Parts: sequence; C-alpha cells; structure tokens
Amino acid sequence: MSKPRTISKGQQTREAIVSQAYDLARRDGLEGLTIGALADRVGMSKSGVFAHFGSREDLQLAVLEYATTHVTNSVFLPAFKTVARGLPRLRALVEGWYGFVTSLERGGCLVLAAVGEYDDKPGPIRDQLVVYQRQMRGQMERAVAMAIEIGHLRAASDPKQIAFEVYAMLLALHHDLRLFSDPLALQRTRTAVDAVIDRFLPAEGAGDPG
Amino acid sequence: MSKPRTISKGQQTREAIVSQAYDLARRDGLEGLTIGALADRVGMSKSGVFAHFGSREDLQLAVLEYATTHVTNSVFLPAFKTVARGLPRLRALVEGWYGFVTSLERGGCLVLAAVGEYDDKPGPIRDQLVVYQRQMRGQMERAVAMAIEIGHLRAASDPKQIAFEVYAMLLALHHDLRLFSDPLALQRTRTAVDAVIDRFLPAEGAGDPG
Repeated sequence: MSKPRTISKGQQTREAIVSQAYDLARRDGLEGLTIGALADRVGMSKSGVFAHFGSREDLQLAVLEYATTHVTNSVFLPAFKTVARGLPRLRALVEGWYGFVTSLERGGCLVLAAVGEYDDKPGPIRDQLVVYQRQMRGQMERAVAMAIEIGHLRAASDPKQIAFEVYAMLLALHHDLRLFSDPLALQRTRTAVDAVIDRFLPAEGAGDPG
Repeated sequence: MSKPRTISKGQQTREAIVSQAYDLARRDGLEGLTIGALADRVGMSKSGVFAHFGSREDLQLAVLEYATTHVTNSVFLPAFKTVARGLPRLRALVEGWYGFVTSLERGGCLVLAAVGEYDDKPGPIRDQLVVYQRQMRGQMERAVAMAIEIGHLRAASDPKQIAFEVYAMLLALHHDLRLFSDPLALQRTRTAVDAVIDRFLPAEGAGDPG
C-alpha cells in the first residue's frame, strides 16, 4: 500500500511504458513483444520494466487494453456522445471506422493483428481479446438496434446481421489497404456499407430515414 | 546437375518437410517457424533441413506456396473445372470457401494469418503474399465477370466490387468462427453473400439467372 502520490507517479511511468510497448507491438505483433526490446526502447533495465508488470503476459494484456481503448476513443465515443441516435449515429460510427483504418500507419490495427495471432491460442490473452471484440461488435449492434427502435431501419431487421456485414466490410477495407494499398478500397467499402444499410431501410413513405 | 531419380527423391523429401512445416506454421505463424523446431519434428538435423532450403525465408516461401496451392485445390479448381460458368460456378466457388473455412481445424487459414503477420513487413514474403492474394481475388473476379458476360448478373456490375464484398464476408466468417466460435456465423455469411448477388441480378424478366 503506497501513498497516493507514489501510485500516481508509478501509474504515469506504467502508462508511458505501455504506450511504447504498443508501438513495438504494432510493429512486431503482440506475440513478438519482449521485455528486453521494450526495456531498450524506454531506457530502463529489464527488472525496471518488470517492476511495473508482473509478467510478459501482463504487459501484453495491458497493451491490448491500450489498443482497445484507443479504438473506443477514436471511433465509438465520438459517435455515441455527439451524434443523434439512429442512422446518423450508425453512419458516424462507420465514418469513424473509415477514418481509423485509413489513418493507420505502419503496423496496422493491433487488435486485428492480435486476432490473427491468438484466435487459436487458448489463454488469458485470447480470452480478453474475445471480450474486447465482442464489446466492439456489441456497440455496433447497439447502434443498429437504436436505429431500428426509432424507425430508421425496418422493424424486422436483425442488428447482429447488419453489424456482421458492416464489420465484414471494415475487415476487407483493412485487408485491401494494408496488403494491396488499393486506392479504391475505401470507395468500395462505402458502396458496400451503403448497400447493406439500404437493404434494411423502411419501405418508402414509411418514415424519414434521417 | 543430379540424375532425375535423385531429384525425384530429394523433391519427395522436400515436399514431406514442407507439409510438416505447414502444420507447424499453422500453429505458430509463418514468422514463428524455425528450422530447429522443424528439424525436431521431421527427425532430421538442422543441416539436413537446410540442405533442402537455402534459408529460413526460402522455407517460409515454400510453406506459403503450399498453403496457397491447398486453397486453390480445395476451392478454386473444383468450381472452375466441374461447374458451369456463371452464377452456378460463382455459387460453387463461395460454397467451396464456406467448406474450406468451416473445416479448418486448430490454426485457421495460414494465408490469412500471414496477411496479418506480413502486411507491414516489406520483403520477399510480403511480395509473394500480395501476388497470391491478388491471384485469388482475381479468380473470384473472373468468375464474377463470366457471370456478367453470360447475363447471369447485370451488365453494369463491377466484378471488383462484387468480389470485394464476397471476400469481405469470407473474412468475417473466418473471424467469427475462429474467435467467437459463433454457430450462426455461416448462416449470416450465406445471407450476406446471397444479398450481394441479389443486388446485381438482372431485372426480372431479363433472363434466367440460373
């Protein structure tokens, strides 16, 4: 039980280390993250880094949380906090995703990379990744469900189906941008997502879809 | 220049090693593949393995080729060789993909895992991965283009757009099966892909879409 001031300084250092670890993990993958490389990068001893994280796995979990928080803050919070519910919010959410994916520099999306690394590796990292990915999909489903509730999308629409399809397009956008550097990828994604939404619009005259 | 018999035996051994390396890489990733672990697995010395591959990178490239050939043989060849061109072939191709993705055991799709590992790592492996992934997308676009040519899909349809959207659904299917073990993932994918195809069908009465 340290004093509050000490905790605060320790937390600041810990957060600075996690931020550097996040950069390393975006380059080398979460599985490629080592305490040694991180210690070199932040100019601390390995035991200094270990003092802030009980184990390499704890560090990896902290980085995964950092990456997820980054996505939440970049994409979900702005749409949920500042844009009216219904189709405007759903479209803002999708636009936020486009912005996030297209602005990724070297390293791509750490969370998606982690899915590839851990989808078949049972353990705490995979478990936490499932929790985060379900939360993100759940937020998308929630935005869709609200759009249905207020009549912007047809009553019989399935939020899980719509969120699945929109997420699919985001995966493909990430894939084609990162691997093919395809300048038309974003335009194709917009066309596809618009078509998904159009499919679930109320019949004409049944209300203003916003 | 060895004699043909010698080449043949060497090739057989090489192929057996690549097959084992493929299994290892499905578990640990292409980047996690080491000559040491592979030598242990096939019961050879490291120098014995090196005799068949000039370098670890050559081995990784051979494994990537093996994985791509596996997808081609499982998904593309049956559809292109045995099913009539047009919508029947396009649907057979998609069904082949469903079968491939749903039958993947532990390890998932090595090619997709490699995309996550190498999309930001310049070098021969990434270059080759881009070639293979473009070829596969190109095959899908070719199947779509044929369906347009013979009037099963509208003349104004963009093969690249349709192939992009179908591929997106396959990425999401892989994601939701591997990470969420979601029993509804395949059904959602079918619904989504059917909707993509429906969107590009000729206007009713303009011909039999097959």
